[in-house]
Amino acid sequence: MKPVNNETIVRQLNWRYATKKFDASRKIQTPDWKTLEQSLVLSPSSGGLQPWKFFVVTDPEVRAKLRGAAYNQSQVTDASHLVVFAARVGFAAADVQRHIDRTADVRGVTLESLEAYKNMMLGVVSRPAAQVDAWAARQAYIALGTFLNTAAMLGIDACPMEGFDPAQFNEILGLDKKGYTAVVIATSGYRAEDDGYAKLAKVRYSSEDVITNVA
Amino acid sequence: MKPVNNETIVRQLNWRYATKKFDASRKIQTPDWKTLEQSLVLSPSSGGLQPWKFFVVTDPEVRAKLRGAAYNQSQVTDASHLVVFAARVGFAAADVQRHIDRTADVRGVTLESLEAYKNMMLGVVSRPAAQVDAWAARQAYIALGTFLNTAAMLGIDACPMEGFDPAQFNEILGLDKKGYTAVVIATSGYRAEDDGYAKLAKVRYSSEDVITNVA
Repeated sequence: MKPVNNETIVRQLNWRYATKKFDASRKIQTPDWKTLEQSLVLSPSSGGLQPWKFFVVTDPEVRAKLRGAAYNQSQVTDASHLVVFAARVGFAAADVQRHIDRTADVRGVTLESLEAYKNMMLGVVSRPAAQVDAWAARQAYIALGTFLNTAAMLGIDACPMEGFDPAQFNEILGLDKKGYTAVVIATSGYRAEDDGYAKLAKVRYSSEDVITNVA
Repeated sequence: MKPVNNETIVRQLNWRYATKKFDASRKIQTPDWKTLEQSLVLSPSSGGLQPWKFFVVTDPEVRAKLRGAAYNQSQVTDASHLVVFAARVGFAAADVQRHIDRTADVRGVTLESLEAYKNMMLGVVSRPAAQVDAWAARQAYIALGTFLNTAAMLGIDACPMEGFDPAQFNEILGLDKKGYTAVVIATSGYRAEDDGYAKLAKVRYSSEDVITNVA
């Protein structure tokens, strides 16, 4: 008894595409958006450390400003929802402690019992700052993958986007003051009927080209 | 008519966890593995450029060597499958051209018609080498997210792992000679009945803590 059958998964992974034109009149309904939110909250991350925040922008004025900082791409204003994936800058021992405190709280265990785990996690922050920031940014991309896949399983469109100016996004959303930086964004909603990109064949290398079996 | 209902998605995202102990006797069956392979092949990436290869290691001797380069973690030998996510090193104009050629082939269009798209993609490779490599590594994390989620939807366990020595992995698998580098790995299979980690409550920050609505 599989939770989701193989055919459904492969069909939806083929169905999804980076939506270029959204139907601005269609909004994601609340129960579906709650599921997409949960996919962000529940996303895996290294050591479970969740070095991220997600900014969900629905304010039209802010969206218009962000569009100006994203090569004027229409998805930024026309999609139902816009998620800015922000990674922690300078993730440090205090962030590890915050996670340890949360773990003790959720699991009802003592801080002492988490000491070995904590010391292992502190290894992450003992690396040079640039490496730690790169690590945090990578984690945000796991959340992006989780979000895009969840949308596909729900039959909701999405478009991941790297074409934007992080510095301007940080400024507009006040992210730097909070200790975060925008690393990637995703717009989500429903494709416009006349988005020609929806009809194009998906371009992927063959399995043989990207998968090497060491057997 | 949703492809997958909300409850199933949220339940499976809660069901999954970073499996610490696999049942070494249980193997992922071929139809399920094919679906997991497809999740790698079909994973989104920036511009669809797929700057990656996936090395699926089932050879027990190679797995034993890799375990030695991964802090002796048991998942590396005991899981049904091991995937090494490798990012392209020095992704360059020739890689863009390869993708353009593939696009022309799959869509049956002329190379000339793809000229504007190609020039946009060449923007990716015009950045400093370290930035391009960091970009490629991030894409591999989208594929990781896609893989982990697909496994969860199928009710198959997995464990993403950053705790390994990339240089040794590259050496053992001959990745550097191929122009790739190991960035993250995932083991997949079925949890051992006595993996105590399966029973622990999942630790996540609250929605309010990680999601900020700009509305």
